[in-house]
Order: sequence, then structure tokens, then C-alpha cells
Amino acid sequence: MLDQVNLNKKASKEQAKSELKRLEEELSLIQQEIKKEKLPVVILFDGWGAAGKGSMIADLILNFDPRGCRVISNAPATDEERRRPLLWRYWRNIPEYGQIMVLDRSWYQDISTARVEDGLSRETVLQRIGDIKIFERQLTDDGYLVLKFFLHISKKEQKKRFDKLEGDKNTEWRVTETDRRRNRNYEDYYRAFDEMLEYTDTPNAPWHLIPSHDRTLAKLEVYHTVLTSIRKALAQKAVPQPAPGKVMIPQTFTLVKMPELADVPLDNALGKDEYNRKLKKLQARLSELHNVLYREKIPVIIGYEGWDAAGKGGNIKRVAAALDPRGYDVHPIASPTPSELAHQYLWRFWTRLPKDGHVAIFDRTWYGRVMVERLEGFCTPQAWHRAYQEINEFERVLTEWGAIVLKFWLHIDQDEQLRRFTDRQNTPSKQWKITDEDWRNREKWPLYEEAVNDMLRYTSTDFAPWHIIQSQDKKYGRIQALELIISAIESRL
Amino acid sequence: MLDQVNLNKKASKEQAKSELKRLEEELSLIQQEIKKEKLPVVILFDGWGAAGKGSMIADLILNFDPRGCRVISNAPATDEERRRPLLWRYWRNIPEYGQIMVLDRSWYQDISTARVEDGLSRETVLQRIGDIKIFERQLTDDGYLVLKFFLHISKKEQKKRFDKLEGDKNTEWRVTETDRRRNRNYEDYYRAFDEMLEYTDTPNAPWHLIPSHDRTLAKLEVYHTVLTSIRKALAQKAVPQPAPGKVMIPQTFTLVKMPELADVPLDNALGKDEYNRKLKKLQARLSELHNVLYREKIPVIIGYEGWDAAGKGGNIKRVAAALDPRGYDVHPIASPTPSELAHQYLWRFWTRLPKDGHVAIFDRTWYGRVMVERLEGFCTPQAWHRAYQEINEFERVLTEWGAIVLKFWLHIDQDEQLRRFTDRQNTPSKQWKITDEDWRNREKWPLYEEAVNDMLRYTSTDFAPWHIIQSQDKKYGRIQALELIISAIESRL
Repeated sequence: MLDQVNLNKKASKEQAKSELKRLEEELSLIQQEIKKEKLPVVILFDGWGAAGKGSMIADLILNFDPRGCRVISNAPATDEERRRPLLWRYWRNIPEYGQIMVLDRSWYQDISTARVEDGLSRETVLQRIGDIKIFERQLTDDGYLVLKFFLHISKKEQKKRFDKLEGDKNTEWRVTETDRRRNRNYEDYYRAFDEMLEYTDTPNAPWHLIPSHDRTLAKLEVYHTVLTSIRKALAQKAVPQPAPGKVMIPQTFTLVKMPELADVPLDNALGKDEYNRKLKKLQARLSELHNVLYREKIPVIIGYEGWDAAGKGGNIKRVAAALDPRGYDVHPIASPTPSELAHQYLWRFWTRLPKDGHVAIFDRTWYGRVMVERLEGFCTPQAWHRAYQEINEFERVLTEWGAIVLKFWLHIDQDEQLRRFTDRQNTPSKQWKITDEDWRNREKWPLYEEAVNDMLRYTSTDFAPWHIIQSQDKKYGRIQALELIISAIESRL
Repeated sequence: MLDQVNLNKKASKEQAKSELKRLEEELSLIQQEIKKEKLPVVILFDGWGAAGKGSMIADLILNFDPRGCRVISNAPATDEERRRPLLWRYWRNIPEYGQIMVLDRSWYQDISTARVEDGLSRETVLQRIGDIKIFERQLTDDGYLVLKFFLHISKKEQKKRFDKLEGDKNTEWRVTETDRRRNRNYEDYYRAFDEMLEYTDTPNAPWHLIPSHDRTLAKLEVYHTVLTSIRKALAQKAVPQPAPGKVMIPQTFTLVKMPELADVPLDNALGKDEYNRKLKKLQARLSELHNVLYREKIPVIIGYEGWDAAGKGGNIKRVAAALDPRGYDVHPIASPTPSELAHQYLWRFWTRLPKDGHVAIFDRTWYGRVMVERLEGFCTPQAWHRAYQEINEFERVLTEWGAIVLKFWLHIDQDEQLRRFTDRQNTPSKQWKITDEDWRNREKWPLYEEAVNDMLRYTSTDFAPWHIIQSQDKKYGRIQALELIISAIESRL
């Protein structure tokens, strides 16, 4: 793609000045609309060293009110970041609805410079490209505008700029040996950049290649593209999208066949002595394994879902009791905060991912999207239909990163739930555990059952299958969960 | 203090079991009250290696609902953390009101093990102790319960435990050469711990020394202390505190004499040509200096306050235009989010501190406490009275860390404000900038003036003095701010 960029184009001085002024004015006005329409905007800049990313960004953001605009410079990853999936640090920083985020370098550095310099295998590069495309699609499907600029200059121009920087004692420190080496090997980077641009130039997030020899011209093109793209995105927001007719079945992954909830047996039970004996033995084993996970830097993610009063809390407690608190976190997932609501729905789970070697237990999970959010209308039908595929993609990233991902549905029947609700209601120290909402949800049991069956059907992948925990007898369910966790870890080691 | 701990005490097996059961039950019930009364609880564990912190914490937190309890393990500081003041990573993690935070090691590691191993000077240790005491007092004054446990064992017992861990192939990796060395030099650490305990045993956050040879006894003592302290704190919340009679003048710092607002001249102005010439020159100079700051790793914090429509936005823009976006952030401070409201008020500023070598510009600041929060009754009189001292302490930490701290009050008179309000009202593209609240605030001008004068009087310290920017002529004000920033940086270099 780079060979189609005309680097010799120049802006006419006279015209440029007034044109620039006009664009600047429009940019500063359009931010109010972005805010009003809650359009999230991601503007990323990649390109050659010394192509002018820094000053381009500096100028661009002066048109925006800092209350709605943030710049993120993606320097080399920190300790924290290296212990998470590659895209974690970018997910973490996605803007809120109505905000503009400008990125100085982005996820693309992981498949361009990193590719040349770390000698990544072709397979790794392709996998990263795949992950990036999914990431961008999930954002744009959620209504984000993703604007990608590549600032292009020739080898000769780059050398000239490095020379100039080095000639000035105030800026000489900015040119490093790495810069010089990159200029000498310009051709290698060119090939890497070109392929990256080709492979990631998607309709939902196309690249804009900016000839950057003439700085004024570059600025005009960037400003113009930003403006027209924002206008287009704002216009599109006004167009209602038709709701899908039936559930959009995720296509990309191999699904494991799951039973219907109605067919799951619930009559298994354990006596107190057997339970205590098994519990003690399994907890000791899990405790040992936790040490190994820590040393081998294997992350474990356990998601708990289930009927109200199915016994999630007590089950989690028995698992947690076997773990070293320095190496695990329990994340209770309640209704989203205003800030969480102002991001793509997976954001609040991305930001809670464990470090490698750590265990994260989620008490309710990202599956809220296809259960409560589906049933209560907290998201559009398109959104929850799309979610099956998005969630599978999310879990795929986690397992490819190396995580063990376990998902439990804690199952009881309606009679058992009623018994437990009534018991809570009648026991003063348990009353806080039961709310009107629980009773309301109970009335929707058949609707929930349908949603759960869909969820089990469409998101039980071979890399992250669902497990139905028979929690009618709580003791049996706890032992079952512990056994499943232990066996998943053992089969990995 | 450590010599008063009776390490030979033992729990009676029989009694202990039932006592423990009772305490566990009470702990699990009291969390509801903590939540209801919005009591934030910090429980930190320090002590000897192998004294049992890990298992103590593991057991303790099983009594709590994870929805209201978090464990933080304070491992060695990360890159991010090392580039901030020492207490930053602890401030960042303080719990929300109504939440429990359990700390495995804490800020005390920076004055105990770090002291012995990094060979800190006496002066540094005393300064850190001072900072810690301020930190804890600011928390407890805000209503936090801070519980500090030190788990004590003898040199011999410690060696025995290391031997035992090393004898088991599952746990041998947990004993490091550092552990062994620390055991050999037990006496050095003993002295450091003892002095630390002595110096930081304050009435508002006393130490609880726990004899930890007998694990059951240790647990009983910890549980018992946690319970009684929480009960006491809950009871205290119910007792209303008398409002202070007059402004509590901060005593600890040297204050710079400031003029009354009414005496500040506002007739300075700049012609367009002179302004443009100066602006260009000063921005070029600031741009150079930004490079130097970056290389020298000096952080700069600039706080903007001022009357509505005094020109903060435009002033900030002229400063920002001279800076490299990779090295600065503008933080617009609006009304606090629910999460921010659920923390001590300085928390949202602590979490926004720049990395060393970076510039943070605050568009409105922590001084909201003694202006809008004072006047609108968003905090108690005690709280804003206390704030003068707390804010000086905060800024002292920043300057001791190495930051250049600049505070600007952008001043205009009432007539000028009216002109600008009217102009905004009459210009379509500016209407979003003016709200009913602005008009309401304007009516309270005399009250604000009094608050501003108090603020200038009590928080203009010799390390972080206020500067009154004459913004009646916006151009003059911008040049003034740039000159002040440049001169502050130059006098540091």
C-alpha cells in the first residue's frame, strides 16, 4: 500500500493557511457533538520515526477541550503490562463514550517494529493480526470510531531529519542508535509496515496513509480525515439498525455439545463425613497446585454463574480457602458503575484480568450480557446476539495467552430455590442476602432458562467449555467444582 | 516495644475452638454494619518472614464477603510505582467507604527491611516516618479505621520454620537466600522493627503486636482486635463532633504573605504584537525546558484555579501548546464521580500524579475542598478547616519527591466576568461554556472572595506558593503564567 503514497505532493502556502484555520475551527466545534452523541473516538498514529507523529498530535489536540480528550503514549510495556495479554494495555485505556483518545503508537507496534526486531515467527504475527482485527471490530461494532493514520516518509527524508535533530544540541539526545539502525534497515521495516497495513486495512477501521514530507499537507490531510470521519460516524448513529431475526450463531469456533438444563440430574448428594474428607484432601491438593501455577506463571480464570441462591458464595469460599491470598482475587460483579457503562461491556473484565501466575475468580461474569442484559433490555438485541461470538473471541485470547479458563453454571431447581429464599427471609443474619430483585428474577425463571440454554449452546468452546455444577446439594457442588479445577490444572501441567 | 511481647503464651485447645467459632461468626456479621455505616477499614499485616502473615490473611478474609473486601499484596514496587512518590501506590489503593482492605506488607516495609537493606540515612528514615504518620492521620481524620498488626516470632522460631518449609519439596522454593540472610541478621532487623513500631505507634493508628509462635493464639488475638476496633469505630461514628469556632490555621509550614484579592492590580495589559512576540519566545523556551525536565526526570505539577470565565482554558492551552504531548496531561477536575466521593478527597489527585519527568496540569484542583465544598456545604466544617493543613502536607510530599509545584489563581473583577458571561451567552459556539451554575456562583462572589483569601493566606507555603495571575487582560495573564513556569523550572535547574 505504501507505494501508492505520493510523497512529492506539496500544499500551496496561500491556500493552506486559510484552509487550516477553517478546519481547526470545525474540529473545536465538533467535540460538543461527539460528547452529546456519546461517540467514542480512537485516533491512532503510527509511522516512521521522525515522520512527525509527536508534533502532529500536539497540534491536533490543541483543537480539543482536554475535558474530553486524552493522549496515550505507548512506550515499551511496563512490568504490569508484560504480565497480561498483549492487548490488555490497550483495552485498559479505551475511551469512554463521548471521549476522544489519541494514541502515539498503538497495538500496531507489536506487529511492525517488534516483528522485525524480535524476529517473531510468521505464525505469531498472523495470530496478533487476527487478535487486533477482532479488537478493532469489537470496538467499532460497539459504536467506536477507530481512525488509523500512518505517517509516511522516505528513507532519505528520515535520514535528513535525524541529521537535523542531531545537529541541534537541544534535540540531539532524541536520536538514538536504534533510530539510526532503523534508518539503515529502512527496507526491512518498509516490508513489515506494508504487510501490516495491507492485512489490517478493514472496512470498519481503514488505514489513512499520510504523505508526510510536507508537514502542512500532512496536517491538512489528517484534520480533514478526522473531520469527515467523525461527521460520518455521527450521521450513522442516527440510522437505526434492524434487529436480527434469530440468534446469530457464532461460527468460528468448535463448540462442545451441552445438555439442556432440564436434562441435568440434580439428585447427587454427599454425606457430611465423606464431604469433609474429600474437601480436606482436594483443598490440600489445590493449595499445592497454586504454588506450581505461581512458579510456572500460569494464570487461571474461573467464572461463576448460576441461579440466585445456587450457592456461588459458599462454593467460591471453599475454593478460595485453598489459595494463598497473595495469588488470587475474587471479583464480585455487580451492576456496572457509570464509568463501566460508558465503555464496551468487556472492558470491565479486561481491566480485571489476573497477572500471569495468579488466579481470578469472577462471582458473576461477562455472561451477564447474554442473560440479565438480554432479558432486561439493558442492551440492544444486536448487542447480545453479537456477544456470543465476542465472548468466545475474548476467551480465545485468554487461552492463547496461556490462561486456564473455567466456567461454572451452578444449577438447582425451582423448588430448591424457593426453599433457600424462604430460609434467607426467615433468618435474621441472612436477610441482607435476599432482595425484591431476587423474587422478581425468580418469576422470570423460564426466560432465564432459555437464555442459559442458549449461552451453554453457543459459548461452550473446546478451549473454554462450560461445566454444570450440581448444586442442589451444596456439598456435592463444592466437591465437583474443586475436582474440575484440579483436573484442569493437572491436565495442563 | 517488641521486648514486651510474651512469646511463650499458648492458647488452651479446648477453649480456643469455640472462641474462634464465635469470633468468626461475629466477623462475618459485622461486615454488613461496616457497609451500612460506610466505615472504611484498612487492616495491615507486617512482621517477620514466616511469622504467618499469609495464612493469617487467608483465614481472616474467609470471614468476609469478597464484595466488600480486597487483599493487596505489596510486592516490590513496579516501574510505574517507582516513578511516583513512595506513598503513591498505597494511596492509590485505599478502600472505598464501607470496604475492607487487607494489606500483606505495607508502607512499613519502606522503613524496616528497606532501611536495613538499602542503608537509608537517618534523615530519610525520619522523613518517611513523618510522611507515614501524616498519611495515616489524614485517613483516620477522614473516618478510616487503620488497624496495624505486627506478627512477632523469635530468631530461633523463624529458623525452625524456614527449615521446615525447606524440608518439604512443595514449599522449599519459598525459602530464599534473602530469607536466610535476614534470619542470620535477625538482630539488625529487630532494632529496625522496634524503632519503627515505637515511632509510629500513634493514638489514631496504634500497633497491635501479636505473639505468633502459637498460631491459634495469634489468630484469636487478631480476630478479637479486629472486632473490638471495628465496634469502637462504629460507635464513634454515631458521636457528632463539634464544629470548630474559627479557621484552624495550619501551623507546621512557613507561609508566604499574600495580598488580599481586592488589592491586586488588574490594569496590566499587552498589545497584540508584543503579546505574539513574547508568546512565541516563551513557548520556544518552555519547549526546550520540557526536554530537559524529561531527561532530568523532574515532575511538574501546575494547578489552575480562578473565577469562572477568568480564562483558565485559554491560558492552559498556551502552556500546553509548548509541550510534547508524550510528556504532559491536562486533568480537568469536574464534580467527583461516585467512586471519587467514596474516598478521602485527596485520593482523586493522588491517582492523577504525573510520572517523574512529566507535567500534569490541573484545570481546577484539590483546592475545591476549601472553596466550592466549603461554600456549598459538600463537606463538614471540620473537614474544610482541616484541609488547609492536609493540602500543605500533600504539596510538601510532592516537593520533597522532587516536583515543581505551581499554583495559579486567575483573577478578574466582577464587571469583567459579567462581560464575558454575556459574551458567551450571545455567541452560539460558546453557549455550552456557560451554565446556570455559573450565574449562581456569581451571586456568591463575596463569599468566594473570602474563601479565596483564606486559601491564599493559609496555603501559600515557601515550597508551593500561590501566584495571582492578572487575567483581566487574557494576553497579559498568559504571558505571566508562562514566565512564572519558566522561571520556576530555570531556578530548579
